Amino acid sequence: MRMYDIITAKKRGMELTDEQIAYFVKGFTNGEIPDYQMSSLLMAICLKGLNSRETATLTMEMAASGDMLDLSAIEGRKADKHSTGGVGDKTTLIVAPIVAALGVPVAKMSGRGLGHTGGTIDKLESIPGFRTTLAPEEFVKNVNEMKLAVAGQSANLAPADKKLYALRDVTATVDNVSLIASSIMSKKLASGSDVIVLDVKTGSGAFMKTLEDSKALAEAMVEIGNRCGRSTYAVITDMNQVLGRAVGNWLEVREAVEVLQGVGDPELFRVCETLAKFMILGCGIAKTSFEAHTMIRAVIKDGSAFAKLCELCDRQGGDASYLWNPEIRGEAAVKYPVKATKGGYVKSINTEEIGLSALMLGAGREKKEDVIDPLVGILVDAKIGDRVEEGDVIGTLYAEDEETAKAAAERFLGAYTLSDEPVARVRAVYGYVDADGYHEM
Amino acid sequence: MRMYDIITAKKRGMELTDEQIAYFVKGFTNGEIPDYQMSSLLMAICLKGLNSRETATLTMEMAASGDMLDLSAIEGRKADKHSTGGVGDKTTLIVAPIVAALGVPVAKMSGRGLGHTGGTIDKLESIPGFRTTLAPEEFVKNVNEMKLAVAGQSANLAPADKKLYALRDVTATVDNVSLIASSIMSKKLASGSDVIVLDVKTGSGAFMKTLEDSKALAEAMVEIGNRCGRSTYAVITDMNQVLGRAVGNWLEVREAVEVLQGVGDPELFRVCETLAKFMILGCGIAKTSFEAHTMIRAVIKDGSAFAKLCELCDRQGGDASYLWNPEIRGEAAVKYPVKATKGGYVKSINTEEIGLSALMLGAGREKKEDVIDPLVGILVDAKIGDRVEEGDVIGTLYAEDEETAKAAAERFLGAYTLSDEPVARVRAVYGYVDADGYHEM
Repeated sequence: MRMYDIITAKKRGMELTDEQIAYFVKGFTNGEIPDYQMSSLLMAICLKGLNSRETATLTMEMAASGDMLDLSAIEGRKADKHSTGGVGDKTTLIVAPIVAALGVPVAKMSGRGLGHTGGTIDKLESIPGFRTTLAPEEFVKNVNEMKLAVAGQSANLAPADKKLYALRDVTATVDNVSLIASSIMSKKLASGSDVIVLDVKTGSGAFMKTLEDSKALAEAMVEIGNRCGRSTYAVITDMNQVLGRAVGNWLEVREAVEVLQGVGDPELFRVCETLAKFMILGCGIAKTSFEAHTMIRAVIKDGSAFAKLCELCDRQGGDASYLWNPEIRGEAAVKYPVKATKGGYVKSINTEEIGLSALMLGAGREKKEDVIDPLVGILVDAKIGDRVEEGDVIGTLYAEDEETAKAAAERFLGAYTLSDEPVARVRAVYGYVDADGYHEM
Repeated sequence: MRMYDIITAKKRGMELTDEQIAYFVKGFTNGEIPDYQMSSLLMAICLKGLNSRETATLTMEMAASGDMLDLSAIEGRKADKHSTGGVGDKTTLIVAPIVAALGVPVAKMSGRGLGHTGGTIDKLESIPGFRTTLAPEEFVKNVNEMKLAVAGQSANLAPADKKLYALRDVTATVDNVSLIASSIMSKKLASGSDVIVLDVKTGSGAFMKTLEDSKALAEAMVEIGNRCGRSTYAVITDMNQVLGRAVGNWLEVREAVEVLQGVGDPELFRVCETLAKFMILGCGIAKTSFEAHTMIRAVIKDGSAFAKLCELCDRQGGDASYLWNPEIRGEAAVKYPVKATKGGYVKSINTEEIGLSALMLGAGREKKEDVIDPLVGILVDAKIGDRVEEGDVIGTLYAEDEETAKAAAERFLGAYTLSDEPVARVRAVYGYVDADGYHEM
């Protein structure tokens, strides 16, 4: 088999065989196939496409290129969730404890934040002492004993994807739905769960800016998951504004705690409830949507979901007293209110810009090596459809110093577009994709 | 300017600006743009195309990437010819002396053979003593004094093309008409002539197998040449069988001498006469086709065209007595007749296979480093439309030993397809392309 022939076939729009796909994933990962041949194939894939069989095979081969987490020692059907990335997306901190409190084993491998989006690992590490590097045995043991563990991705999780992504990033071959879907799903397949629930964000703060593109990505990922024997669902949720109010690691943990205590942002709760529902249904713990909703609300009400987060914290070296009494953690040096410079209805918010304001404050990373400040961030007040008057506080920046706050405030304010006419509020959940296709919600 | 944006633009089917094209040619040539970005762009170009303005700009930038031969010291309009490569293509050895004998300065840079096709430089070097490495001053001086010089391409002729071609060759991005046309034309532009006549071969022994593809390539090259201020013509000639009878360096020189002496293969003469005609017309030496034909036949008849080849040979260190008395050069050790194993009409000849038979005999190079045997090769007897009987000699192999001859004979014989029905002969010249488009001949 020759890489040249594989490139030629795809260039001519032909289907690649499973053997050809396995050949180039293995060859590229072990360095036998050079970058310049791979990037030529990637461009041909972008312009000629992959069908769903090719996409599923590519995903499985990338998953198999490194460590495959073996969860067979854990009893019952294991559930995993994944978000395509957004601003102020703290759903894992809420969904995972809810589902685990209901007896579903959740073995969650998470990533760190980069650019305008955050990562679950960074948020958990804002709890003093919380440890996210777990050996595979400890990880499996924790899930077995308490139904929940959250760890950083091992360096050898789907290395083919890591190498391919780095190449796509510099060769303008990122924006192909099959390549995006296989990149995400390869890590999910390698993480070993039976049920995969995907939170596909759509809007100005998301990777996918339009509902159309988000649906296509959701459908591609569900198709891959189901073809590979995993019960897969995708929920399409809004990212035209921050989910909830908080952006920034410790601020988001506090907001998650509020939801688990039953007093959180209702839209944020709605997204979490929907994600949790599909995890529960997929695992067979509930039979109907209604039953699932009832169960979720019960573990919020009786405090067992919040207790599960505290248990997770304790087990992984964190100090849960910070969750019970968040005020002891302290606050950033400067709380800087951003005020509307005119009145109007909030028409749109460039949410990527909000994420970048938080990045300026030190809440995220521009480069992988950057160090995060856990206490800085933003609390958003004005959301789409809100009426604001000149001088109203539309958000509060938590900063290390006044100067940084001022620069970030300008960016934050610039993200808002006001209108004289009333503006409709935005739905938090648009719909979901299962094996039968897209369903509006 | 960023390479990433250039790749993205072409991927989306947008036109590249002249500045973008200059940027990537320069950057790739000096190593600032890595192979993996260039191959991604090349694939996007293959699938989205370049228009004629982009193609001309690419060609000029590649020409300007290295040495540009300055022919301004030579009086009059200089003419160049180029063949896209075939089997037994000895036209330069005939056309260049004819045209030079008529007073047209011919400054010819030629290549060496690779694979199933031969190269003019190798053919000339089969004349003992012939030197093809000329310093630029010597080259220009010879053209000035005797209207003709033939030299190997300098190492720094269009280095961008050299580097790009090497990458295309391993990334399945060779077969795009704009890229092929610009690759050929960049070297012609750098070679400095005012008139460029292209011999585009079509058929089983050519790079372009169909008339359609050959026309497209011819049109693309003529468009580039004219856009860049050179009078450019392309003649489309047949390569469904060997041009003339001889394949192999010294055998081809002998056949060229026969044509220049007025006793050569008529189809070979017809191709040479057509190429010479456009060189003469382009330089303004003749005003009409009829006038050009008359002039060409005159320099054959009075021996001045042959005398010009001998003069070239003398001037570049060769011994012209080998041209006057070819038999003193000797012959290959073995002359091996290939006989038809059944009777029939010759329907088709896989001419690439004929070229590869000659390669097996040692007449060409598989790899650049291979050494050529000047005396080996093939004289073809049976051509398309000929009637052969079982046992008739269809070709004679000139080999170093019996064993090699036998193996090559099998390949040679396998290239022939016979038919019981009579078969029409093949035209040697199909048509030509000038600024007004394609004209059948």
